[in-house]
Order: sequence, then structure tokens, then C-alpha cells
Amino acid sequence: MINDKLPKIWYGGDYNPEQWGPEEWKEDQRMFKLAGIDVATINVFSWALNQPDEDTYDFGWLDETMDRLHKDGVGVVLATSTGAHPAWMAKRHPDVTRVDFYGRKRKFGGRHNSCPNSPTYRKYSRLMAGKLAERYKDHPALLLWHVSNEYGGFCYCDNCAAEFRVWLQKRYGTLDAVNEAWNTRFWGHTFYDWDEIVLPDGLSEEGEGNVSAFQGISLDYRRFMSDSLLECYNIEAEAIREHSKDVPITTNLMGTFPLLNYFDWAKHMDIVSWDNYPSLTTPVSETAMTHDLMRGLKHGAPFMLMEQTPSQQNWQAYNSLKRPGVMRLWSYQAVARGADTVMFFQMRRSKGACEKFHGAVIEHVGHENTRVFREVAQLGEELGRLGDTLLDAVTEAKVGIVYDWENRWAMELSSGPTVELNYVREVHKFYDALFKQGIEADMISAQADFSKYDIVIAPVMYMVKPGFAEKSEAFTAAGGTFITTFFSGIVNETDLVTLGGYPGELRKLLGIWAEEIDALPLGQYNEIVMKQPYGKLTGSYKCEMLFDLIHAEGAEVLAEYGSDFYKGMPALTVNRFGEGKAYYVATSADSDFMEGFLGAVCAEKGVQPLVPELPAGVEVARRVKDGRSFLFVLNHNAESATVRTGDVKRRDLLSGVTVDGAAEVPGRGVLILEEAE
Amino acid sequence: MINDKLPKIWYGGDYNPEQWGPEEWKEDQRMFKLAGIDVATINVFSWALNQPDEDTYDFGWLDETMDRLHKDGVGVVLATSTGAHPAWMAKRHPDVTRVDFYGRKRKFGGRHNSCPNSPTYRKYSRLMAGKLAERYKDHPALLLWHVSNEYGGFCYCDNCAAEFRVWLQKRYGTLDAVNEAWNTRFWGHTFYDWDEIVLPDGLSEEGEGNVSAFQGISLDYRRFMSDSLLECYNIEAEAIREHSKDVPITTNLMGTFPLLNYFDWAKHMDIVSWDNYPSLTTPVSETAMTHDLMRGLKHGAPFMLMEQTPSQQNWQAYNSLKRPGVMRLWSYQAVARGADTVMFFQMRRSKGACEKFHGAVIEHVGHENTRVFREVAQLGEELGRLGDTLLDAVTEAKVGIVYDWENRWAMELSSGPTVELNYVREVHKFYDALFKQGIEADMISAQADFSKYDIVIAPVMYMVKPGFAEKSEAFTAAGGTFITTFFSGIVNETDLVTLGGYPGELRKLLGIWAEEIDALPLGQYNEIVMKQPYGKLTGSYKCEMLFDLIHAEGAEVLAEYGSDFYKGMPALTVNRFGEGKAYYVATSADSDFMEGFLGAVCAEKGVQPLVPELPAGVEVARRVKDGRSFLFVLNHNAESATVRTGDVKRRDLLSGVTVDGAAEVPGRGVLILEEAE
Amino acid sequence: MINDKLPKIWYGGDYNPEQWGPEEWKEDQRMFKLAGIDVATINVFSWALNQPDEDTYDFGWLDETMDRLHKDGVGVVLATSTGAHPAWMAKRHPDVTRVDFYGRKRKFGGRHNSCPNSPTYRKYSRLMAGKLAERYKDHPALLLWHVSNEYGGFCYCDNCAAEFRVWLQKRYGTLDAVNEAWNTRFWGHTFYDWDEIVLPDGLSEEGEGNVSAFQGISLDYRRFMSDSLLECYNIEAEAIREHSKDVPITTNLMGTFPLLNYFDWAKHMDIVSWDNYPSLTTPVSETAMTHDLMRGLKHGAPFMLMEQTPSQQNWQAYNSLKRPGVMRLWSYQAVARGADTVMFFQMRRSKGACEKFHGAVIEHVGHENTRVFREVAQLGEELGRLGDTLLDAVTEAKVGIVYDWENRWAMELSSGPTVELNYVREVHKFYDALFKQGIEADMISAQADFSKYDIVIAPVMYMVKPGFAEKSEAFTAAGGTFITTFFSGIVNETDLVTLGGYPGELRKLLGIWAEEIDALPLGQYNEIVMKQPYGKLTGSYKCEMLFDLIHAEGAEVLAEYGSDFYKGMPALTVNRFGEGKAYYVATSADSDFMEGFLGAVCAEKGVQPLVPELPAGVEVARRVKDGRSFLFVLNHNAESATVRTGDVKRRDLLSGVTVDGAAEVPGRGVLILEEAE
Repeated sequence: MINDKLPKIWYGGDYNPEQWGPEEWKEDQRMFKLAGIDVATINVFSWALNQPDEDTYDFGWLDETMDRLHKDGVGVVLATSTGAHPAWMAKRHPDVTRVDFYGRKRKFGGRHNSCPNSPTYRKYSRLMAGKLAERYKDHPALLLWHVSNEYGGFCYCDNCAAEFRVWLQKRYGTLDAVNEAWNTRFWGHTFYDWDEIVLPDGLSEEGEGNVSAFQGISLDYRRFMSDSLLECYNIEAEAIREHSKDVPITTNLMGTFPLLNYFDWAKHMDIVSWDNYPSLTTPVSETAMTHDLMRGLKHGAPFMLMEQTPSQQNWQAYNSLKRPGVMRLWSYQAVARGADTVMFFQMRRSKGACEKFHGAVIEHVGHENTRVFREVAQLGEELGRLGDTLLDAVTEAKVGIVYDWENRWAMELSSGPTVELNYVREVHKFYDALFKQGIEADMISAQADFSKYDIVIAPVMYMVKPGFAEKSEAFTAAGGTFITTFFSGIVNETDLVTLGGYPGELRKLLGIWAEEIDALPLGQYNEIVMKQPYGKLTGSYKCEMLFDLIHAEGAEVLAEYGSDFYKGMPALTVNRFGEGKAYYVATSADSDFMEGFLGAVCAEKGVQPLVPELPAGVEVARRVKDGRSFLFVLNHNAESATVRTGDVKRRDLLSGVTVDGAAEVPGRGVLILEEAE
Repeated sequence: MINDKLPKIWYGGDYNPEQWGPEEWKEDQRMFKLAGIDVATINVFSWALNQPDEDTYDFGWLDETMDRLHKDGVGVVLATSTGAHPAWMAKRHPDVTRVDFYGRKRKFGGRHNSCPNSPTYRKYSRLMAGKLAERYKDHPALLLWHVSNEYGGFCYCDNCAAEFRVWLQKRYGTLDAVNEAWNTRFWGHTFYDWDEIVLPDGLSEEGEGNVSAFQGISLDYRRFMSDSLLECYNIEAEAIREHSKDVPITTNLMGTFPLLNYFDWAKHMDIVSWDNYPSLTTPVSETAMTHDLMRGLKHGAPFMLMEQTPSQQNWQAYNSLKRPGVMRLWSYQAVARGADTVMFFQMRRSKGACEKFHGAVIEHVGHENTRVFREVAQLGEELGRLGDTLLDAVTEAKVGIVYDWENRWAMELSSGPTVELNYVREVHKFYDALFKQGIEADMISAQADFSKYDIVIAPVMYMVKPGFAEKSEAFTAAGGTFITTFFSGIVNETDLVTLGGYPGELRKLLGIWAEEIDALPLGQYNEIVMKQPYGKLTGSYKCEMLFDLIHAEGAEVLAEYGSDFYKGMPALTVNRFGEGKAYYVATSADSDFMEGFLGAVCAEKGVQPLVPELPAGVEVARRVKDGRSFLFVLNHNAESATVRTGDVKRRDLLSGVTVDGAAEVPGRGVLILEEAE
Repeated sequence: MINDKLPKIWYGGDYNPEQWGPEEWKEDQRMFKLAGIDVATINVFSWALNQPDEDTYDFGWLDETMDRLHKDGVGVVLATSTGAHPAWMAKRHPDVTRVDFYGRKRKFGGRHNSCPNSPTYRKYSRLMAGKLAERYKDHPALLLWHVSNEYGGFCYCDNCAAEFRVWLQKRYGTLDAVNEAWNTRFWGHTFYDWDEIVLPDGLSEEGEGNVSAFQGISLDYRRFMSDSLLECYNIEAEAIREHSKDVPITTNLMGTFPLLNYFDWAKHMDIVSWDNYPSLTTPVSETAMTHDLMRGLKHGAPFMLMEQTPSQQNWQAYNSLKRPGVMRLWSYQAVARGADTVMFFQMRRSKGACEKFHGAVIEHVGHENTRVFREVAQLGEELGRLGDTLLDAVTEAKVGIVYDWENRWAMELSSGPTVELNYVREVHKFYDALFKQGIEADMISAQADFSKYDIVIAPVMYMVKPGFAEKSEAFTAAGGTFITTFFSGIVNETDLVTLGGYPGELRKLLGIWAEEIDALPLGQYNEIVMKQPYGKLTGSYKCEMLFDLIHAEGAEVLAEYGSDFYKGMPALTVNRFGEGKAYYVATSADSDFMEGFLGAVCAEKGVQPLVPELPAGVEVARRVKDGRSFLFVLNHNAESATVRTGDVKRRDLLSGVTVDGAAEVPGRGVLILEEAE
């Protein structure tokens, strides 16, 4: 339980009373009650208010807010206010503002605006976090610490350059090791002095869009930036811990946000929290995957849905409204996948600046007679009824999908073979194929323990870090099923190619050799032709983008290419390895293939779907706790759907209705079915 | 009359003899006469020539030019030559060049190149204007002063930043008021010192394409820049007035150019003039609207067509030739809508630099035996025959369409609900629906007196400035018809939302409440379904982009949405308010709806079209003077068209032919029909 | 012969042993032998290795490499290593790095990274070239000097600005002449002091994509940059010549690379060499044209194919594999068109940085059992068998096509009449029409001697430099056929329009006057309607983009426009001029027209195709030497094709088979048919 002061699914969100006055505060109080709001995230952007100059701190407004919320029965997620620095600080200490990709010094403005290696920023953010912790550590409203806000962004200033050199010295020891790791003999880039190393930006090695002349440098810069921002988090977290010993600390993450290695970050966070903002075209299975990834950051521990919009966003191109029922449906999707909170950005809509068209629980009209508020209040009532039933319940997947930020960085920095390779899209193809069949999966790191899984999938495992190949071999030898794809096993952790034939360190496990890699524009297809039926797979399927030209070296060939000069070469292979099997998918396949292939592999391993058959657009997920099992059925269709739930009788926690064998789920409806295990 | 020295429609244009020598001057003289040219705009880009260094002025060439033109019977529009500063000035006084959106100091080059707050630029441009006025104030050729050229562009230098702070102090008085106006509590942007305020550029609050984190700051910066450039105009105008008391002063505007608030500017100009450069795809009704807007800047006073190309442009992607007859047709379009001059850029084509492929009266071939020259000469002959008949004639529209630059800035800076909202396009939809039915409209400012109109349309009136709502209510209460649309009444003049329910200050007048605003990608349609026929409106019409979800609060519902979850909610309402009616169009409708709707509203108010029925592609407009009425019929089709002109007999000023009931207008032909009132 | 030490078609390529160790060197040795490799380009990017600091030079690794290669029978193309400067140099001497288009000082990184006017770069590159020449001038492995690598790129630093002024003083003498040449009276740009002239960049006169306010300035800057880089080449070449008197010197060019005037460069090079990297969509006839252009740089002398990929590239969007047979086919295409070497980038694939996914003879797998290596080895064996048979053989075309870099620069800088005009595409349309009919062409400069040709084609000869018109007239008067097109004869060498009617200086020769130029978006067509059949031309053909509205002034009209207001005006004319004819194609015609038109013109002049009839996708070319004639037949189709080769019996050099009248050429197959003359 995040904090036993509030033993239920937390319900509330970002709240900025400092933008308002007593009249609105009174209305907030009344409407929070109507909506069942029991938690508020405050102080996110109040640095300038808390500290009007170098030496003055003024927490009067915050004292009052904390007290008022407590009196109203609303707990507090207390942010440290360091998400954007004050204007006076930028004016007096230019080191706090960033330098951009083209070497331009930024001025005061926006957010994500502090250089992570700025001495001033580090000094004052540490001080602020410490003062807040000291002051509020025992406040009865306090539920959780929320450090800064949505960390992200790069800086290219001289302080960062100097710290990068220190970071490199720590990582590599000698300049020779750096030259070796980056292969600097290429293009005569040998460094003879640490000071010759400059940051890889638009004036040195890089171009916009992850284009780099030296992948090794650019990759290390990304590691360094993720580490630098994490240090900022740690500085504040440590300052808090000096005073507040037990209240958990988090910061809000952003799903598959590319710039930060969240697996590293999660080690330093007490609980993972994240902000869920799907766009108009995000598939629901991608949102599900991202929830699972956030759950995976701390090995399956429940997480917090820190932000979502109750209605619409403002920063998309087209900010469509969440259709009636969708906010509730997506809230339960989060809970189904491990969230123990349902929180919004934000409680009351701002009246000025760039987020004034972002939806809120309390809209500009200011009263409760809105569709949005009614839906919020209905959900609040339901969550109140659910109490602590679901808290700390976990997921028990037998399939693990590897997701690795460093692999993503390296792959997206790659010059060739194609500009179209998108890591998230390729991982999602595997996830989606399981999702549609109601098969549970965990999203796991490349460093994860594989032994708890029956099947481990590592899509496009371009970078193989030390120990990964050995671990995968051991897992497979012990009976596991390992799956990987084209463009895997290519480089080591510094982006140097593993010589001797692709897929490098994974070659033995997979029993193949990839001689060449063809790349074609999207829309130019080859075919995967099955040699004989495998599960439901039979006949031929479309594939595109990249095509490994592989030779079986011990592996069995399950399918071949159907055309072009590599017609007849293997497109899908399986290698028996010890007690297990290792599959290689040599190209980017269509969704029919993916579904058939993963269905067959799961069947082979006895990994069962959660329900016998799943209508299109219906999602299932399960959380388990103290021997109780909760099956979530989420109908993402506008129309109702009939879902066969199997032989066990179950009871819907929300409606109390008993389901026997099949349930009719209304359009955008949700069931939480408890079964006897 | 602009200047009674030349009591006819002026005919001529930009003339740069300083690029040529005596041989060409002689030819110019001969060919001007052949073409009926009687006015030349000179000295537009001769600063470097007039002032070769800090202290030297040399107007010898200009004396000669003025005298020569006068001798040849050509009047002079005398520009002040400050449209581009000299190279020596940029070299010696770097403050004259601008700093761009990314903080980069510009070097010498291009035009629009002077910082509007540069002390050097202001000093030398004032001196230049004064010297010219002193020298030529009594020159017999002088007809008009033309200050600088096509003002525009932004600067982000330190001088501008300092002046911005002064401007803010004047506007807001206190820093508290600034913080309040900009809602700086959002993202902790509170300013404690004026010097903390920086310009909103690509290094602070903005991104390219009107993207801003703080709309209030960006909006004020746009106001400040418009004011700064206007100050540059005023500095020169005042320097001229010290010497030249009566000759009118103008500068050439650019239609719907986004950066300058021309309604403000026009207050300081003696006559409005503008440069008309439609692109290959500009609808003729948009050009007509822009002429009407230019006429509206000074409440209906005649204006000058200062520039148009006789043949083709050079800076479009595809510079197609004006087809035979089109130059004449579009010249009369300007006159029909209030222009008392027809002028070209330019008289003789340059032989070098970027405008050498811009059309001219005298082409590179140098003689008169060209299609372009023949068409120019024919028009010159006609304008000579028209004499002063049309001068000072006015338009008597009963429909006013509000066009507001500040509203446009605020709306286009908005983050959400859609990136597709284009102010000019939405205004034009209304204009076009009237245009196609031959109904006259004035383009008016938000500050205009509404009482002379029967119908006032304020499309997408996102920003409601002080007094606007009261004025609209009074207008409607007194029997007027007021029309506005979705996304209106949202913010006040500093872009702060009017709380309590959209459309804010307009809510009472309209009798509705807009609870939510849906946004969908272009091409995803809903339908406007009429509850019963209204005028010709019946059945259903397509609508897209933004969809206000409104509730009638007293208003009558004329049409509803046809699909999606807001099917059945109002899409078109009318509210009886005092003696009048207020209509609300809740979404962006198709052109069939627009035409039917405005046709019905006009019929209801007894606003008559100029002709009983208008064939597609034919434009009508009317100017009235001393009890005489001139009906312009402009056939934009390549083929001839028959236009019914009603029961009155009329005479075509151009051909002398009498029209009785109907006229056959040749392809691209023009009639100017005088009727007895 | 390039160097009589190696009297055969050289076979090898770029080799970077400094990126590897003894183990790989040994394998290289073994595999070079297997593949018939006899030449290696080394030391291309080893500056940092050769010179670790200001004063230290260390050629130990190079001594060993040279000796080892020699021992193994591999000759050396010795690069000077100055293609990218060392990191220490950038650190200690910032003048070596460039300033970019927006005035941003670049840091160390990438390649093409040295300012061409940097005193430091010039000093150290001269020293390096001299030291290398002194050390290796007599090394038995040395075959050729290779200065720097793929020169290119612009710099906008202060050193360049200062040198630009010196360059201008040399070119123009006086500032008055500069002002005149650039027409600076336009926009008041008159310069009164040399120091007022700034480089035309994104902060002064230019915008991205060849957009300029002053074409004359921008054009001279391009000339200056081409000259500045050429000076860098000359500095090194002269330093080499001080020691190495006879070994030829080259640098690798890049085909139609836009930035350098290669006709100027070739005058200073002993032999032309170039890097051939067609993209996925480059037509084979464009590659052929580029080979012919490279051959044309030194008036038909054999050239070197310095780089091509054996398999795939890495820097295209989609790096597809060369299909089986294609590498061999394209290698022979180079030979067919004049190459006396077949060389690859690169011998062994790098294991790190941005080119690690660029194909190589020795792939990452490291052994010879790859498709790529087998194809390389097969070709190596064939080239060995061919010996010196083809060396120094030349081409005997009777058609010359003018290609002019300055014309391209000026045309692409032009503002108007269309953004779509692409010089290479227009030239290629003519080349392709000949290519498809098996008619040989030379690509020649505007300064070339026309007298050896029967037909000279100068497509879109926008800029007519001094002497060109006179030469073209003399050529035609003497019986030649001259062909040019729309948008020709417009400006002189400083981009000033030739007044008095287009096509200016070419008007007399062509017997026409182009009164206007219409421009329409691509996809909007007019038609070329033949007045009577001409050769196979009959009926009507599509044309687009630009449309000259011409009048025949003595010329005969062969075809007219089919629509729009210029229907019936001439679209194709021919003017009898002395003993010859001058054709004018007034618009951009479709490929059917082009083929028919050039077929007819060639037939008229008795210019014969190499074979009686050519199947689609089959290329023919001929080289001639010592009375022997070699007809290359290259089948670019995947399927076999039958080619009629005429009455003479011929023998295929590759297979030894005799061909009598017709040959079946396999898919992607090659014949080299020797005939008795």
C-alpha cells in the first residue's frame, strides 16, 4: 500500500490553488466532496511563489493549503516545486538555463528549462526539497513526495560538457578505452586529451532526428543525460530523506518517453508513477503495453496513474473529447494493469497560458453540472466502494517482453539499414498479438530475471549487453522459449559490432547466421511462406522493411521468403537448445502472422489466454491478491460485446451481478470479475 | 479626392529610374505616354543613393527625376527611401539590423531589415523624411507621400526587449498587473522585477508557427511590435508634416498580413493604400474581401491600389501569367470595391537581383509590342475616359463582418483545441457566402459603430474586448441581427478565459451555454440537421473541425448535430434579444449551409442582393456618389455569362451600351452600369 | 595508362587497416588474393594518427602498411589524410572549424569539417602532403596520390568573408564594377566600402534551399567557395609535386555534386576519379550520364571509378542490397563509359561509427563465404583476364550535351518563374532520350570545342557566358545542329538579364523571340502539337512546368501549343543558320517527344545508334582503341534480352563466344563485343 493513511485507490490529481482565490477554494472543497476526491497533488509549479528571491522562503500559502485540504479529508501528494525555475534565478544565474542543440543559450521561459548540471539549480533545488521535507514531514495530510515534474530534455552547455568528461573518466578510466569504445580511428577522431571531447550536438557530431556521425559518443551522451537528470532527482530525494524517513518518494514518468532510462530511475524511486496521454490514434493495446512497462519498472509492483485528462488535451494537433464512458474505461484499464491510483491533470482548469484548453475536473464554467464532472463523480463513487480490495494485487504473466532504453537509443542512432525502424512499434507488434488473444505479458528489462517466465521475447535486440546472451542461453537450456527477430545481436554496449557473423552473441542460441540485411521502403512487401502449418499459421503472410538473409546452422526452418532473390531462404526458424527452443523472426511481419505465431508458441508452452475467446476491441487483464483473482473485462468498442469467461462462476465487483460462462459487456463498459481460484 | 492635382483614377506604379540610364529614361517617357501612365512611385529603395554616408546627402538624381516626370505630365508618389537601410549603416551601427527568433544577430542584407527600435534607424529615417519633405514639399509633381515600404517583421534584440518593458509599464502600470494579465502563477512564472521579463522567442516561450507557452506574453509582444513599427511610421510622418502641411501621407499595407494591426495603423494614415498579390489559388472572393477590408480600415473611405503585377509574380512557387483580360478585370475589381487608383509594381523590370522575374509594364524586351503592354495601354485609355466619375464614390452595405487582428493573434497562439483553426479562412466562409449571392458587406473592426448595419457577423470571436459585448447587445436589442460562431467569447483582451461558461460575455446575448468543444481532424465530419426548413436550408449539411456542445438557454434551436455522442444537441440557434436576433453557428459548416443560412438571414432582414440572380463566377459590387449609382459586373469566368440586372435601365460607362434587364458579359469582361437611383 | 606499374583495370578500394590489428591484416592479405585485389586506397582518414600533435609526425604504421601491401602485390593509392582534421587541431586552432549558414561556429566533429580558408588548415595540410610525398615518393607500392577526400561544403567564417573580398577585388577590380555586376541599386544595396560586403548566408541575403535576395552575390560566393576548396587541393598537390615528380595526383569527385565546378577542378587534376553511389531510384541512364560527365571533365580521357559499394550503402533512407549480378553489371557500366579502374568503398567493414552498415568486400562475418565476396572474386578474375585490352580506350560520340555548373547555380538561385526547375533533371531528359536509342553522347562544358560534334545540345542554357553565343553560331553556321530549350539565353555571367528580348544572345541563332514565360504547377499540362510529322514525331505530346511564349522570327515552326491562351504559338522551332540548324524546345516535354525529337535530329545528321534496335532496359556503349572497337552490351533487366548487334561478327571478350547478328544477354548480364572496324 502506498500509504496506509489512505487504504483505497487514490482519486484526485494535480491541483493549483495558487492560481485562484478564496472563492474558488470554497467551491473546490464542495466539488471535491461531490466527486469523491481524496488526494491532491500540489506545489508542482510554485517555486517562484515559495522563494521570491535568493534568500527568502515563504510557505504561508502552502501551510494554509495543506491544512485546508486535510480538514476536507483530502490527502496530499506534495511536489517539490522544482519543475520550472523562477525568472529571478534565470536572470541572476544564467547557468540554470539550458543551451540547445545548436549551442544557443536559452533565456527564461517554458518548463523543462533547467540545466541538469547547473550548480545553481542543484543547490537551490536541494535546499527547497530539504525545507519542504523539514516543514511538512509530519503534516497529517502528507501522503507522498513528488520530486520535480516530468523530467526530460537535453542540455549542451559547458557545465554539461565538463561533467560529461568526468562521467566518461569514471566509466572508461582511460582515454584509450574511450577511443576504443567509440572506434575513433574511424574518420581520424582519435582523442589525445579529455578536453578535446565535445558534446555531440548540431555543431559537432549530430544532426536533427537522432542522426550521428559517431553512435558511440551519442549513445554515451544519452546515458550521461539520463544519469544527470537522475542525479537531480536523487539530490532532492536525499534532501527529503534527511527529514522525512518513511513517506514514499516518486516522480512522474512518461511511459515510453525516449530520453530517460526508466529502469535505472525506478531503482531510486519508492514507487513508480506516470502520466498517461494517449493521442487520437494510439491503439488501446499500446496504452496497455505502456501500463505494463511502468509496472515492470519495479518488477511488477503496483504503480500510480499520476495524470490523465478527464476529457481532452490541449497539445495534440486535434484535441478530441474522450467519448462518454472512455475516461472511466481507461481509468479501469490502468487499474487492471497495476495502478493503485486514478489521478487527473487537473482539478481546475487554468484561465490563462498554454494549458487553459486542457480538460479538468472543474471546467471553466465552474459548476458540477457537466458531463465531465458527472463521469468523474460516478467513478469516484465506484472507487470508494471498491475500497482496498484491489490494492497491491499483482499480475502473474508467463510471458516476458524485453524493453530496453539503451537498445532503443543505439538502434535509433544507427545510420542504416533503414530510417523506418521504430523500436516501440516493433515491440508493440509482439505485445499486440498477445493482447488480442487475452494472453498476459510482463514488460521487462534486459537485466531482468527470466526464470519466472515460460516465454521471453526480445524484439529487435540490436544491442546485446554483457551477460544477456549467457542468460538467454541458460533460460532456454532450462526449457524456456526465447524469441527474437531480425537486426538482433548486432552490437555490444558501446555500439561496436560483434564480429564473426550476425546475430553475434545470440548466434549459437538461435542456430542461424544472418549473412545480409536487405532494406526496402515501407509498402514494398515480401512474403513469409510457411513450410508446413504451425498452430494456425499456414500459407503465406506479408512482411516488410528489413529482411535478414539467414542460413540455418542447426535451426529448423519453419517458413521461407516467398519472393525476390532470397526466395526460399529462411524467414522463421526455431532452434532446439537444451530443453528449450529459440525462435528467430527474420523480418517485420504482418499482424496475422504475429497473432498466429505467438498463439502457436504460447499453446506449445501451455500458456493459456485469460478467456477462451476474445471479441475484437475487448481487453482482458487479471490482478491477483491473497488467493483472490480479479478478471478485468474492458470493452473498448462503442457497442456491447459478449465475452465468454469460461466455466467458473464469477461476480462483478462493480455491479454485483454474477457471470456464468459469458457476459454481455456494454459499449465502453467494464467488469471486474472475481473468481474462486 | 486624394489630391486634386490629378482628378481621375491614378494610373501608374513603382518606378526605379536609378537602376537605369538616360537611354531607358527616354523610352520610359515615350511608353508612359502610350500607356496613359500619370503617376509614378519613386525613391522607394534609394536610401544608399541619397545618403552615401553618415553626413552626406545627395538628391541630385531625385531632383532630375521629379522634374523630368513633371515635364512629362506624370505625378509623383514620393517614397521616403527607408524601406531598406544602407550597407554602410549596418556596418557602422549594428543596432539597425535585427535579431531573429533564435537570437541571431542579422547582418546587412535583404529588406525589412531594420530593427524598429533601433535608435540609429529612427534617427536617420526621421532625418531623411524631413529632408525630403523640406526639399520637395512644393514640387509641382508631388501628389502623395509614401513612407517606407511594406512594414513588417519582428525583432528580438536587446533594444526591443528594453522598449517592451517600457511599453508594458505604460500598459499595465505595475508588475502585479502584468503577472495577473499573463496568469504567471501558471508554471511558476511570476516576475518580481521588470528586468526579468524577456522577449517571447525561440529561446524563451515560443516555438515556430505561433506556438507559445504563455499566450499573454506572446500577444503583448505582437501588440508591441505592431506599435513599434507604427512609431517608425509616425516618426517619419511627423517629420514630413513639419514641412509639408497638406499633401496626404500613406504607407503601403498588405491586406490580411498577420503581423500588424492595420485598424490601429489606419488612424494615423491619411489614406489607406495596399499591395494586392493573390496567389494561383486565392479565390477571387478572398481578394474582394481583402479590398473591402482595406476600405474598412478608414470606415469606407476610398483607398489606393498601390501595387499589383501587370502579368506575373516571381516569389510564388509557380508564377503563372495573368491570363488575357485578367489584369484589367482585377483592376476594376479593386475600383469596384473602393480603389481610386490602379497602380503596378513595377514600371520597368529590373535586370538583376531577386525581382527580375516579376512582371512589369515595360518588360526586358524594352518595347511596347507585348501582350502585357497592350493590355496596360487599353486600360490606361479607359481610365482616362472615366475621368473623375467614380472618384470618392462609396459603398452602402447593410452587413458588417468583424475582422480583428488581436483576435486573430490570440486564436492562432492558442494551444488547443485544434491546429487547423485559421481565422482568415473562417471569416472568408461568411464573406464568400454573401459574395456568391451578390450581397454587399463591409469589413469592420471590433471597435466599429454597428448601428449603421442591419446585420453584424463576428466569426470566431474568440477574444471579446471591453465594450464589445455591451455594444453587440445594444445593437441587437435595437433590432439588429448578430451572428457569431463556435469558439467565441472565450477570452478577454489579455487571453484570460471568461469564467462561468462559454461563450462568456456573449452568453446572455446568444442565450446558450457551450459546455464542451470537440475537435476532430479535417475530413472527419458531423452533420448539421435542420429541425425545419429555414429559408432554403433544409435537410442536413456537413460540418467539421470544431464542434461546440451547446445547450439552449432561451435560444431557439434551428438545427442539431446528426451524429456522434452529441447527436441531437444544437448546432444552430437563434436568440430573440430585444427587438433583434442573435444567431450562433456551433461548428464550421460547409458552403451550402453558409449560403443558405446567410441568404435566409438577409431575406429576413430585408437586405437585398445587388442583382436578382448571380451566375457562378460573376461578381457584383456597387459604388454610389452624389445620387449616382454604379453597378460593377465582373465576369471571372473564361466564358461569357448572362447577368440579370433587374428592371432599371442602365448604361455601361465603358462601352456606352444600354442594358435593359439582362446583360451578356464576355469572359473576363467588365461592365460599369450607371443607374438612376 | 594511369601508372604503368599496374597495366590492367585496377581492382580494389578504400582500406583502413589502422582500424584493425595483425590478425585482420593477415586475413586481408589472404582474401585480397582470393578476390584478385591489386590496389588499395589508404591513409584517407589518418591525420590524427599521423600527427598526434602540433610537432610530432609518426608514419610507422604507414611504412609497415605500404611495405606489407607491396609484398602482397597490392599497389597503393596514397591519400593525404586531410579529409578530416584532428580533434587536437580543432581544440587549439578554432579557425580550422567552419561557421555554418546561420553564423554558428562549429566544434570538432564529422568530416568535411575544415574551413577552406583557415590558415591553420592550409598550413598543416600543406605540411602533411609534403611529408608524405617526401617519404613515399619512391615507394614501389605507390601508384597514385589521392588528395584529401570528397571536397565539399560551405563556410561562413570571418576568414572566408575577408578572402571573399580579396577574391572580388581580383575578379572585378573596383567596387563600382561589383555594384554594377550585382545590380545593387536594387533595394538600395550599393556598397561604398569593400568591408561592407558580407557573405550571403541565412543572416544576410539567403534562405535555405538556394533562396537569395541577390543572385549575383550568391553566385559569386559559390564560385569563391569552389575556388577556395580548389586552392586547398592545389596547395597539397603542389607540396606533393615538390618531391614526387611523376606519380599522378587526383581527388575523388562526386558526379553531379552541386557545389564544385568540376570542369575548373579537372584542369588541375592529373586524372579524374569519382565515387558512384546511385540511390534506390536513380535511373541507370542517370548513372551513365554521370560517368560520361566525369569522362567529359578531361575531354574524354579515361577516369577512375574510385568508390562504389559492393553491396549496400548506409546513408540512404532505405539501403537495399545490390541484387545478384548488379555490382558486376554496374562495374562494367563504369568501364564501358571510360573507367579504367573498378574500386570499392571499402575493403573491410568498420565495426563502429556511422559507416558500419556500409557494405564492404570483407563483411563483419570476416570470411569469404558470402554472396558479396563471391561476386567480388568473380569480377576480380574477369578483370585479370581482360588485362590491358581496354585501358585508355576512348569514346567517339558525335553528340555533345553541355553541362555547366555556373548555369546550374544561377538557375537554381533564381527567384521565379518556378520552384520546380531542376537542371540535372532537364539535362537528363535529353541524355536519356539518346541513351534509350543507343546513341552515344559526350557531356561537355560550355567552354568546350564544339567542332568535333555534329550535334550540340545545351538544355536550359539560362546563363550565356562570354563567347558562348558566338561559338554556337559559328558551330551552326559551319553545318552543326544546335539545340536548346525554354529559359535559355536569359542572363550573362553575373546573372544580369540580357535586355532586348529572350533568348538574348541566342536569339539571332534561334530565329525566335520569347515574349513571356508561363509557369504552372507540375501535373498541369499543355500539349506540343506537331504541324506535320517529323521523324517519328506526329500528333501531340504532353509538356509541363515552363512554357515559353515564342514568336518565330525567321525560324520554322515544327509544333505548336495545343491549349490555353497561347494555343497555336510555337512550341518547337528550327532555324536554318548558315549550313546548319538551330532547334528550340519551348517547354519541358514528355519522354515520348524527347525520344522522337532526338531520334529525328540524329537521323537527319546521320548520327547512327550503336545497334539497330535496343530493347528496353538494355544499355550499349563503345570504347575504341588502336583501331579496335569494343561494344558493351549491359542488360539492366532481371530477365534476359535479345539484342540485334548488326551485320558484323563480334567476339565477347568475357565469354569468348562469337555473336553473329544478335545476342541473347542474360538478366543483368554483360557482353564486351570486339568488332573489326
